Amino acid sequence: MFLQIENFLTPAEVQTLTELAQQTKFIDGRRSNPHNTAKSNLIADPNEPASQQASQLALAAFHRSQEARNFVFPQRVAVPALTSYRTGMHYGAHIDSAFLPMGQPPLRSDVSCTIFVSDPASYQGGELVSYFGTEEVRIKGKAGDAVFYPSTTVHQVAPVISGERLVVITFIESQIPDQQQRHLLYTLNEVRALEGLKMDWRNLTQMDYAIANLHRMWAR
Amino acid sequence: MFLQIENFLTPAEVQTLTELAQQTKFIDGRRSNPHNTAKSNLIADPNEPASQQASQLALAAFHRSQEARNFVFPQRVAVPALTSYRTGMHYGAHIDSAFLPMGQPPLRSDVSCTIFVSDPASYQGGELVSYFGTEEVRIKGKAGDAVFYPSTTVHQVAPVISGERLVVITFIESQIPDQQQRHLLYTLNEVRALEGLKMDWRNLTQMDYAIANLHRMWAR
Amino acid sequence: MFLQIENFLTPAEVQTLTELAQQTKFIDGRRSNPHNTAKSNLIADPNEPASQQASQLALAAFHRSQEARNFVFPQRVAVPALTSYRTGMHYGAHIDSAFLPMGQPPLRSDVSCTIFVSDPASYQGGELVSYFGTEEVRIKGKAGDAVFYPSTTVHQVAPVISGERLVVITFIESQIPDQQQRHLLYTLNEVRALEGLKMDWRNLTQMDYAIANLHRMWAR
Amino acid sequence: MFLQIENFLTPAEVQTLTELAQQTKFIDGRRSNPHNTAKSNLIADPNEPASQQASQLALAAFHRSQEARNFVFPQRVAVPALTSYRTGMHYGAHIDSAFLPMGQPPLRSDVSCTIFVSDPASYQGGELVSYFGTEEVRIKGKAGDAVFYPSTTVHQVAPVISGERLVVITFIESQIPDQQQRHLLYTLNEVRALEGLKMDWRNLTQMDYAIANLHRMWAR
Amino acid sequence: MFLQIENFLTPAEVQTLTELAQQTKFIDGRRSNPHNTAKSNLIADPNEPASQQASQLALAAFHRSQEARNFVFPQRVAVPALTSYRTGMHYGAHIDSAFLPMGQPPLRSDVSCTIFVSDPASYQGGELVSYFGTEEVRIKGKAGDAVFYPSTTVHQVAPVISGERLVVITFIESQIPDQQQRHLLYTLNEVRALEGLKMDWRNLTQMDYAIANLHRMWAR
Amino acid sequence: MFLQIENFLTPAEVQTLTELAQQTKFIDGRRSNPHNTAKSNLIADPNEPASQQASQLALAAFHRSQEARNFVFPQRVAVPALTSYRTGMHYGAHIDSAFLPMGQPPLRSDVSCTIFVSDPASYQGGELVSYFGTEEVRIKGKAGDAVFYPSTTVHQVAPVISGERLVVITFIESQIPDQQQRHLLYTLNEVRALEGLKMDWRNLTQMDYAIANLHRMWAR
Repeated sequence: MFLQIENFLTPAEVQTLTELAQQTKFIDGRRSNPHNTAKSNLIADPNEPASQQASQLALAAFHRSQEARNFVFPQRVAVPALTSYRTGMHYGAHIDSAFLPMGQPPLRSDVSCTIFVSDPASYQGGELVSYFGTEEVRIKGKAGDAVFYPSTTVHQVAPVISGERLVVITFIESQIPDQQQRHLLYTLNEVRALEGLKMDWRNLTQMDYAIANLHRMWAR
Repeated sequence: MFLQIENFLTPAEVQTLTELAQQTKFIDGRRSNPHNTAKSNLIADPNEPASQQASQLALAAFHRSQEARNFVFPQRVAVPALTSYRTGMHYGAHIDSAFLPMGQPPLRSDVSCTIFVSDPASYQGGELVSYFGTEEVRIKGKAGDAVFYPSTTVHQVAPVISGERLVVITFIESQIPDQQQRHLLYTLNEVRALEGLKMDWRNLTQMDYAIANLHRMWAR
Repeated sequence: MFLQIENFLTPAEVQTLTELAQQTKFIDGRRSNPHNTAKSNLIADPNEPASQQASQLALAAFHRSQEARNFVFPQRVAVPALTSYRTGMHYGAHIDSAFLPMGQPPLRSDVSCTIFVSDPASYQGGELVSYFGTEEVRIKGKAGDAVFYPSTTVHQVAPVISGERLVVITFIESQIPDQQQRHLLYTLNEVRALEGLKMDWRNLTQMDYAIANLHRMWAR
Repeated sequence: MFLQIENFLTPAEVQTLTELAQQTKFIDGRRSNPHNTAKSNLIADPNEPASQQASQLALAAFHRSQEARNFVFPQRVAVPALTSYRTGMHYGAHIDSAFLPMGQPPLRSDVSCTIFVSDPASYQGGELVSYFGTEEVRIKGKAGDAVFYPSTTVHQVAPVISGERLVVITFIESQIPDQQQRHLLYTLNEVRALEGLKMDWRNLTQMDYAIANLHRMWAR
Repeated sequence: MFLQIENFLTPAEVQTLTELAQQTKFIDGRRSNPHNTAKSNLIADPNEPASQQASQLALAAFHRSQEARNFVFPQRVAVPALTSYRTGMHYGAHIDSAFLPMGQPPLRSDVSCTIFVSDPASYQGGELVSYFGTEEVRIKGKAGDAVFYPSTTVHQVAPVISGERLVVITFIESQIPDQQQRHLLYTLNEVRALEGLKMDWRNLTQMDYAIANLHRMWAR
Repeated sequence: MFLQIENFLTPAEVQTLTELAQQTKFIDGRRSNPHNTAKSNLIADPNEPASQQASQLALAAFHRSQEARNFVFPQRVAVPALTSYRTGMHYGAHIDSAFLPMGQPPLRSDVSCTIFVSDPASYQGGELVSYFGTEEVRIKGKAGDAVFYPSTTVHQVAPVISGERLVVITFIESQIPDQQQRHLLYTLNEVRALEGLKMDWRNLTQMDYAIANLHRMWAR
C-alpha cells in the first residue's frame, strides 16, 4: 500500500536540502550494492557534515508527521540519504534488501520512503515505478512531497532524460512487518479516528477491544 | 467467549421437548466416552423417533437464530442430543473431544452449546461450570435459554442434588476455528451492524474492507 | 498482484458473447448486493439459456489457459456472469464479498477476474480502478483480454460516460488464499520453468525441494 | 486465563504499602488515558519517593514468586503503580492499551496484574470484572492476594460504594504473547512438574522434547 | 520423522503380494513423472485385477495398524502401488510431488510409505536414502516391514545391483500437514497412553486439555 | 538439517585447543543441568583464562565461516565450551534447553554445534546420535570438523569406551527459528549463488524478489 503525503517538507526545508546538496560531496550509489549493475545514481557522502545535516532534517520531518507514523508503525528508521539521479542515471528493476546492516540486529526494511526535493518540472523521466505483476504504479511527486511504499515489490527509478532528480530516501522497520496486516490495522485506526466520536460508547469500547488485540497479535 | 441467548426456544418448543423426553428411551451417556469415569448422565437413544424429533427441533432453532449464527460462524453442526442428569448424576471436569466421529472428515468441535429445557427451579445443582485457571463461570439458564461456549475450556456439570436437569447439547465446527480470531471478527461485525448507518460511506467502505479481509484470512 | 492476459478469448468467442448478450435478458445487478447503493449495472439473467451459454464459454476459456491457472492456483471457480454497464452506470468503490453463497461450503473469493468483451473504443469511461492507498491502477482491456486481480483491494468501475461496457466477471477460490504467498510461489514456478533446463540437476532438485515444500506449507 | 495467588504479599508488606500510601501524593489516574472519561481513580505520583518504594516492593514480590513467573513467562514488567479508588470512583469497561510507552521499544501488555492491599471488608463495591461475552468473572481479593489476568479482555473496576480500594497494578510483557499458547505451555509444564518423577525416563524425555519445542515455537 | 514398523504385513500377505506381482503386468514407472530422467522403475498396471488386489491388501494393512494411524493422523490415502526395481534400476534424488491428481481436490502428500515385499537378502543395493543436508538415513526393511517418512525430504532409491526389489508405495495426506507439529502431537499422545493411568486425574485432565487443543489448533 | 564442515578448524587451531585443554581446569558438566542424571561429562571452567581462550578461538572460527553463517542465519551465539568425555562418560538421550540464561533476553538455542578436537581414532564410542523417530543419524567427525544440527531433536553422546573425546560445543539463536523455513531459505540462497550468473536478469530479479520476501516473512 502507498501513502503519498503532500508538503511533507516545508518550502524552506526543500530550499535547505537543495543548498546542502550543493555543498556536499556525492559518491557512487553502488557502494551499498556493488553487484547491482542496474544501479546508477549518486548518494551524498555520509561522512560530510552537509550530508548529515540533510539526514537529520529528513528524520525530523518523519518524526513530526503523525500521518506517516500512523501508516508505517515505525520501529526503527534507517539514516535517510540525499540521493541524486543526474541525466542518464537510473536504478533498474530491483527489490530492496530485506535487511540493512545498520546497527545490531540489522534493520529490516518493511516500508521504503522517497522524499522529492527537485521540482518535477525541472527533470524529465525519473519516475518511481512499482510493479504489481503486469500492472504498475508510477509516481513523480512535487518538491516537498513524500511517498511511503512497501519494500516488498520490485520497483525501479526510470532513467532521467534531462535535468537532475534530487530525492531523500530511507527505509523503515515496522512494528507490524506483514503489509496486509499493517494496512488492516491502519484502516481500522483511521475509521476509529474519524467515526469514534459518533459511536455509542459500548460500540466504541468493542472497536477498541478489536484494535488493541489485533495490534498485540500482529506486532513482532 | 460466551453467548447466552434468552428464549432460544419458544415455550411451546420447551413443552414439546419435555414431552419427547417422556416418550423416548434414555441410555448411558458414557456410550460415547466409555473411559470417562467422571461421566454420569443419560442421552436419548438416537435410534428412537422421539429422540430424532427432539434433535430436529433443536437444529431448526439453531438455524433460525441469526444471533447464534453470527456468533459461531457455523460450518457444520453435530446432531443435537437430548440429555438428562437425574438426581446424583454429573459430568466431572473434562475437555470436549477435538474431533467427533460424525461424517467424513470428523467434525471438529469448536463451540459447544447447551439448551436448557428444565425449569431451573425444578432441580438443585447441575450448573455448567467453565474453568479459566483459578476462576470459573457458572451458568444455569432458564427453560428455553441457550448458551454457546468455547469447546476449548475444561468444564463440568455440577452434581444434580435433586430433581432432573434436562438439556439438549450439541457441538459446532466453526468456519473460524481460533476462538480469539472468531470473537474479534464477530465484534467488528457487531460494531458495523450497529454503527454502519451513521458512518460516512468512505469510512464504511474501509470498515468493510477490513472485515472482509479478516474473514478471508481466518476462515480455514 | 495483477495478471492481464491478451487474447484470453478468440475473436470468434468475443463475437459469440456479443450475440449472446443481445439474446438474453438482463436484470438489475444489485440482486446479489441489494444494500450497495453504489452499484448500478445489469447482469444476464442466470436462468436464461443464452446467459448459461456465455458462462460456459468463459469457464472453458479459463480452464484452457495454463497462464491463468499457474497464476491463480484455482480450487473452485464461480459461475462467470455476463455483465453490462450502460451509459451512466458504474459500480462505486467496494470490496468483493469474502464468501459467495455458491455451493457448500460457500466459495471464498481470492482472485477476481474481468474478461473484456466490448471494444474499448466503443465506450467512454468504465475503467476498472483498484486502490492501493493513495495510488491506483486503472485497467481498460481490449476485447478478448482478461485481467485477474486480488479480491482483497477496494476497487470500482468508473462511470460509463457513453456506450456500453460488456464484460464477463468471475471469482476464484485459490488453493493458496494468501496473496503474497501465492505470488511468491507463482514467481518461483516461473523462474523454474524459464531457467530449470539450464541448471545443474542437483540445483534443480534443490529448487524443486523448495517449491514443493512451499506449496505444501501454504495450500489450505 | 486467571491465576489468583493468595498471600502474594506478606502481612508486613501489606502494612508497609498501606503506610506508603498515606505518605505519598496521589494524582489523577486519567493522566495516562486523558481521553477515557470512564476512568476515575488516583495513582501515586511516580516522582515521590514513597511511590517508588511501593513500586519496588511490588516488583520484588513478583520476582520472588515462582508461581507467578511460571504462569506469565515474563519478559518485561511495567513499573507497578499504587492506585486508589475512593468512594464513588470506578474505571468503566475498557481494554488495556496494547503498548505502554515504557522504555524502547514500548512494552506490550499481555498479562495484567492487580495486587490487593485494602481489606475487602473495608470497602463496598470495587470488584474487578472481566467480560467474556455475556458472562463475567468478578474478583475481590483479600489483602495481600494478587490476580493475574489476560490484558486482552474488556474489564472494569466496579464503582466503590464506600471505603477505599487500595491496590497495586502492573502489566507484563510475556515471552509468549498468545494467551492460548501461553496457557497450553504452562499446563504441560505443570503436568511435568507434578507427574515427571513417576514417569519412565524415556517418556519423560519425550515430554521434555515436546515442551522444549513448543517453547521455541511460541516464544516471540 | 520416521516410523519403521516390523511385520506390518503377515508372512502370508507377503507371499500373496509376491504371487500377485508374478501375475500382473508392470509398466514404466515414469508414467507419473515423465520428465524425471532419474526415475527408472516399474509399477504394476493399475488396470490389472492383480494390481488392484495388491493395492487393496496394502490399504487394509494400513487401516488395521493403530501404530501407523497414530503416527500419520491420516486424512486420505493414495492407492498403494506395487513397484519393482529390477537389476540396474533406481530412482535418483528427488522430492515427492506436493499434490497428486487423485480425486478432487488433489491429494497432498505429507507422509510417504514404503512396504518391503522382497527379502532384503535377495537383492543388493536398493536402499531408501533420505537426505538431511550433509547426513542421510538409509533403510532396507525386512519382507513385511513398512516405513513411514516425511514427503518433504529429498530422497532416492539407490541402484539395485542384483536381484529385484519389490515394494508397495503409497502417500498419505495427514490431518496435520506440518511435520513438526504432527510429531509433537504424536509424542504427547504416546506419553499420555503410556503414563496416563499413573497420573492423578486432575493432571490427566490437564494433559487432555493440552492435547485436545493442540489437535484443534494444528488440524487443517 | 545437518551441515558437516570439514576443516572448520585448521590443524594449528586443533593443536592449540588440545594444549589449552591440558592447561585448564575441568569441572562437572552437570553444573548447567544438575537434574539430568544421564549427563556425565566435563566442561572447561569458564573462569580459567585457558578456557576463555579456547572459547574465543572457536567463536572466531565460526565468524569467519561463510558456509556456517549461510546455513544458520546467526543472530546470537552462546560462548563455546571446551568439553571432555573421558572413558565411561556419556550424555544420555536428551533435548537441548529451549532457552539458555546467557544475557538478556535468554538465548534461544535453535542450532547446536559440535566441533571435534580429538582424532576419532584416539577414542572408541562417543558418537553424536540424533533420533528421528525409529531412525538415527550417527556422527563422529575428524579433528577440526564441525557439525551443525537442529537443537530440536532428541540426541545423545554415546558412551566413550576408551580414550577421550574432546570437543567444543555451542548453541546458536537463528534469525529464522523454524528449522524448515530456515532450510528452505538456505536452499534458495544456494541455488541463487550457484545458478544466478547463468540466469536472464529478469528471472534473477524475480528470484531475488522471492528470496528477500521469504527472508522478511520468516525472520523473527
